[in-house]
Amino acid sequence: MNEQHILKSYDRDLEAIQAAILKMGGLVEDAILHGADALAARDTEAADRVRAGDKAIDGLEEHINEEVARTIALRAPMAADLRILLSVLRLAAALERIGDYAKNIAKRVGVLAEARGIEGADASLRRMAREVQGMLRDTLDAFVRRDAGLAREVLARDESVDQMYNALFREILTFMLEDPRTITASMHLHFIAKNLERMGDLVTNMAEQVVYVVTGEKPHDERPKGDRTAFMGAPEAGTP
Amino acid sequence: MNEQHILKSYDRDLEAIQAAILKMGGLVEDAILHGADALAARDTEAADRVRAGDKAIDGLEEHINEEVARTIALRAPMAADLRILLSVLRLAAALERIGDYAKNIAKRVGVLAEARGIEGADASLRRMAREVQGMLRDTLDAFVRRDAGLAREVLARDESVDQMYNALFREILTFMLEDPRTITASMHLHFIAKNLERMGDLVTNMAEQVVYVVTGEKPHDERPKGDRTAFMGAPEAGTP
Repeated sequence: MNEQHILKSYDRDLEAIQAAILKMGGLVEDAILHGADALAARDTEAADRVRAGDKAIDGLEEHINEEVARTIALRAPMAADLRILLSVLRLAAALERIGDYAKNIAKRVGVLAEARGIEGADASLRRMAREVQGMLRDTLDAFVRRDAGLAREVLARDESVDQMYNALFREILTFMLEDPRTITASMHLHFIAKNLERMGDLVTNMAEQVVYVVTGEKPHDERPKGDRTAFMGAPEAGTP
Repeated sequence: MNEQHILKSYDRDLEAIQAAILKMGGLVEDAILHGADALAARDTEAADRVRAGDKAIDGLEEHINEEVARTIALRAPMAADLRILLSVLRLAAALERIGDYAKNIAKRVGVLAEARGIEGADASLRRMAREVQGMLRDTLDAFVRRDAGLAREVLARDESVDQMYNALFREILTFMLEDPRTITASMHLHFIAKNLERMGDLVTNMAEQVVYVVTGEKPHDERPKGDRTAFMGAPEAGTP
């Protein structure tokens, strides 16, 4: 086997692995959008489909892990290629977790279908979901095109997801205080909002990983931490 | 350089990497315990120390990632050794996330110090934290001693963390419904409980990884999903 032949085999392996990442990413994008749609429509059947779909996502991660390990063992890639392969493992792990969060959102549709709604919350959640899905799509594009600029744009967009979350947190707290009958729905809607915020963080980590793959350097991450709610009390809290 | 020499170098690299994982694990165990203590005492200074300590944890993960990549590139390890090295990446990533959750708990101490407490919740949270820390200690022991049996015992223990979380979720919902003035504190305490439950899940993933390192096989994971609260409404909810 001459060197040329090894190179070609490696390229083919890498292409197959990248195709698997894209496929996995597509399934996760669908899970985000369909999960949000199922929630907005309180459609438990659609939610069940999202939950069932998570198995395929998990299966793809497993497959990617095996292919990466096989490729490293077989081709003993040099530093730059190894960097790509190890980054692929991280991208797949992040996708798997985003898929889990989408599944968790779908899981809550049932109990929310029976609970009192909160005006405006559904629309906000859907906006968050669409933003996260758009960021994910661009991150995967940036990865395939080795486009660090596009990946950096995604980093900047995480703040808008965080802002939507912070606004929603306040809104939900106020609702609960004003009408305790909304507490059950509020708790679940709040979890969903937090899940979307975490999905945004994960996509951001993926975008950082893409910058690293392309440039060999981690972006200097002094982004402000978006979730300020850890410090937040409700305006009315404590005053009976 | 003869083969013996290469072997010894590899062993030395692996030992150094394992030592770094243990050090990282020790810091994360401390963050869990000190975070829970700071919470129970509403000690914002202790909480600040936990938050500041997360930098060292993140730094260790970075270091481990670099050492693993360097070792793979330099030593081109065979399948079994590669499996260990790739598992180390996963263990480090899980530890980093557990550290993040501990930091997030510490972050909430400030707002909780100013809010109305919930009887019994602190003790439950501390119990959860101690259980998670114990599981983590045993998982790291199991990794170093290549003890699949001990790792499997950890898997079984995740259920008790989940049960504590489920009980606390119900308790917190009831408190909120009975006394809306506890809503702010409840929201934060609930988040902390959920963080601990996720930390337990992460430790469980780590224990599965250890089983995989030792046996070469993934444990057949048909554990029941512990968080049933996605399906839960409060008993009183919906009835004004």
